[in-house]
Amino acid sequence: MTIESERRPTLARIAELAGVSVPTVSKVLNGYRDVSVRTQERVERIIAQEGYVRPSKPRDGAGALLDLVINDLDSAWAAEILTGAEEVAREHRMHLVLRAVHTDAPPALGWLEALGARGSRGVILVLSDLTAVQRRELRRMSIPFVVVDAVGGADPPANSVTVTNRHGGFSAAQHLISLGHSRIAVIGGPEHLSCTRERVAGYRDALKVAGLRCDPRLIRYGPFRHEEGYRQACALLELPTPPTGIVAGNDVQALGAYQALKEHRLRVPSDVSVVGFDDVHFTPWTSPPLTSVRQPLRDMGALATRMLVTLVNGGQPPVARIELATNLVVRESTGPVAASRSR
Amino acid sequence: MTIESERRPTLARIAELAGVSVPTVSKVLNGYRDVSVRTQERVERIIAQEGYVRPSKPRDGAGALLDLVINDLDSAWAAEILTGAEEVAREHRMHLVLRAVHTDAPPALGWLEALGARGSRGVILVLSDLTAVQRRELRRMSIPFVVVDAVGGADPPANSVTVTNRHGGFSAAQHLISLGHSRIAVIGGPEHLSCTRERVAGYRDALKVAGLRCDPRLIRYGPFRHEEGYRQACALLELPTPPTGIVAGNDVQALGAYQALKEHRLRVPSDVSVVGFDDVHFTPWTSPPLTSVRQPLRDMGALATRMLVTLVNGGQPPVARIELATNLVVRESTGPVAASRSR
Repeated sequence: MTIESERRPTLARIAELAGVSVPTVSKVLNGYRDVSVRTQERVERIIAQEGYVRPSKPRDGAGALLDLVINDLDSAWAAEILTGAEEVAREHRMHLVLRAVHTDAPPALGWLEALGARGSRGVILVLSDLTAVQRRELRRMSIPFVVVDAVGGADPPANSVTVTNRHGGFSAAQHLISLGHSRIAVIGGPEHLSCTRERVAGYRDALKVAGLRCDPRLIRYGPFRHEEGYRQACALLELPTPPTGIVAGNDVQALGAYQALKEHRLRVPSDVSVVGFDDVHFTPWTSPPLTSVRQPLRDMGALATRMLVTLVNGGQPPVARIELATNLVVRESTGPVAASRSR
Repeated sequence: MTIESERRPTLARIAELAGVSVPTVSKVLNGYRDVSVRTQERVERIIAQEGYVRPSKPRDGAGALLDLVINDLDSAWAAEILTGAEEVAREHRMHLVLRAVHTDAPPALGWLEALGARGSRGVILVLSDLTAVQRRELRRMSIPFVVVDAVGGADPPANSVTVTNRHGGFSAAQHLISLGHSRIAVIGGPEHLSCTRERVAGYRDALKVAGLRCDPRLIRYGPFRHEEGYRQACALLELPTPPTGIVAGNDVQALGAYQALKEHRLRVPSDVSVVGFDDVHFTPWTSPPLTSVRQPLRDMGALATRMLVTLVNGGQPPVARIELATNLVVRESTGPVAASRSR
C-alpha cells in the first residue's frame, strides 16, 4: 500500500493525542472490534476534532459504483452470489448498487439512464440479460459488464463467469446410474436458459454413455421453484412407469420433489433417489440431507466482480470467460435402486 | 405523475415513428414483457435513434442513492429483508448501495467518507450499528438513517422498524406450555442484542404467567448460527434433567438443535419439541416442518425504506418507530409432552 507513508504522520498525531498506539488508531479506523469501547470513542472523538481524513488520492477506481442486476433476489442462491460480489467490491473500495429483476427480463430502460446519471462504472448481470439497445448503450458509454450465469440469447457476453453445467448434469445422472438406476428423470429450469440446456445435455450424455434409452417423458422444464419441483415430480409419479431417480434443476425444486414423494407415500432414497443442484447452505439440513451438484456461488460472485474491477480500471481480465467446476456432493437422498423397482 | 404531460409529445413521436400506440411505447420504456420481441426492438431502435430521454426534472429524490448496511448477508433472512427494501427503492426510482458487515460491528470509518463523496442521501442499518461519531457525522451531513432490528446500544435510533420480539418469545414459550411442557429451554441470539433480550424476556413472562420456575441453566445465548444451535442443544441435553421443549433464536439455530437431537437419538416432536424464529422461506421444507415465530422480514425491509424515502424527501414519517407483529406458525416440530418425560 503506497499510501501508507502519506498517512503515517497524521495517524501518529491522532495516536499521540489519544494516548494510544498507532496500530490502535488504525484498528479503530478499520472498524476492528478488539479495542475497548472507551478507547474507540476517545480515538474517534479526536479523529473528529482533528478533521482527519484518509489520504485523498484514491486507488484506481476507489469509490466507484458498480451496478449488480440480479434475478430471484429472494433466495439463498442470490444471497451467496451477493456475498462474494460485495466482498470483492469492498476490498477494492467500490460499492455495489443492487437491482432486482424478476424472471430474466432486462431492467427497464430508465435503469440505464439512471446508471449513467449516477456515474456507475460497470455492471454485473446475474442470470439476467440486457436488450440489444442496452448493450449498445453501455458500450457507447464505455461501461463494461460481466455476466454471471448467462441467460443464453443470440449474443453471448464477452465477459462471463459460469460453471461446468454440462458436467454437473452428467455427474448427477451418472451417480444415479452407478447406483443401478435406469429410469432417471430430469427437471430442468426454464428451457430457454443456457444453464438448463447444458445440464439436460449432460444428463443425456450420461444416459448415452451407459447405453440407456432417453425417454422424453422424463425430461421436464420449469421455473426454479419449490412448487414447480412438486408439480413436475407429481406428474412424473403419475407415469405408467415412474422414475426411480430424479435430478432436479436446483435444491428448491428437489425439496418440492421431496414433498411430492412424501404425499405419494414414497421414501427418499429407498423408493426414489433425488439429486439437487446448487448446494445452497441449507441442503445439509434437509431430511434426508440432499445430494446436490455444488456450484461455487460465492466464488462466482467474487470472480465476476474481480473481472469487472479489472475492466473498470482499464485492464483486460486474463480470461474473459471463466467456467468454474461443479462437483457432486453425495449425502443421503440417493441410494441403490430398490430391487422391486429396478427394470 | 405530474411529468406525464411533459413526456407525452415525445412518446407520441416515438409511437408514430414505430407505428405503435403510445401505451406500447410506455410499456417498452417500463420493461413490461407483454410486448412482442420484434415490437420491443423496433421501439428501442427508434428510441435510440431519436435520442429520447425521460424528462430531466426528476421526481423528489428520483435517482438518489440509499446505503443499506446489513449484517449476515449470506442468509435467507438477509435475502428477504433486501427484497423488500429493493422493491420500495425501485418504486421510488432510488437505488440501494449494498454494504455487508460481520457481527454487528459498525462499518469502518472510510465507509462514511465514501458515502458522503458519492452523495448518498440516506442509510438503512439492518442489525448493525454506527459509532457515536458516525451518527454525529451523518447528522452534520443531513443524511437520515433508519434502523431495522436495532442492535440496542445506549442511544436508541430515532427511526426504526422492528417486530414485537417480546411477544414472539412469549408466544413460542406459551405454545409449548399449552402442550404440557414445563421444562422449556431458550437459545437466544447474542446477549447484547435487544431482539434477543426482548425474546428471552417474553419467554420468562410466559413461564411466570404459567407459574413455572425459570431455570437459569435453560437460558442460553450465542450467534444466530446452525453450529451454535447444535452446540447449545447438545449442552442442554447433557443436563441432569434435559428440556422437553426448545425455543431457538432463529430457524437456523433450530435446525442445529434438530441435528443435536438426531445424534442423541431423540425424535422431534415426540421426544423434544422445537420452535424456530423468523420463519424464513425454507422452514416449511425442513423435516419435520418447523414451528416458528414469523417475522415479516420483507415488510420490515420495505417499511424501513419507505420511512427513509420520506425522510430523504424532507418529510417526517407518520410513525418514527414501527413495531410489526410477529405470529407463531405452528407446524410439526411441536407436540404434546411425552408422558415419560413430563415432570
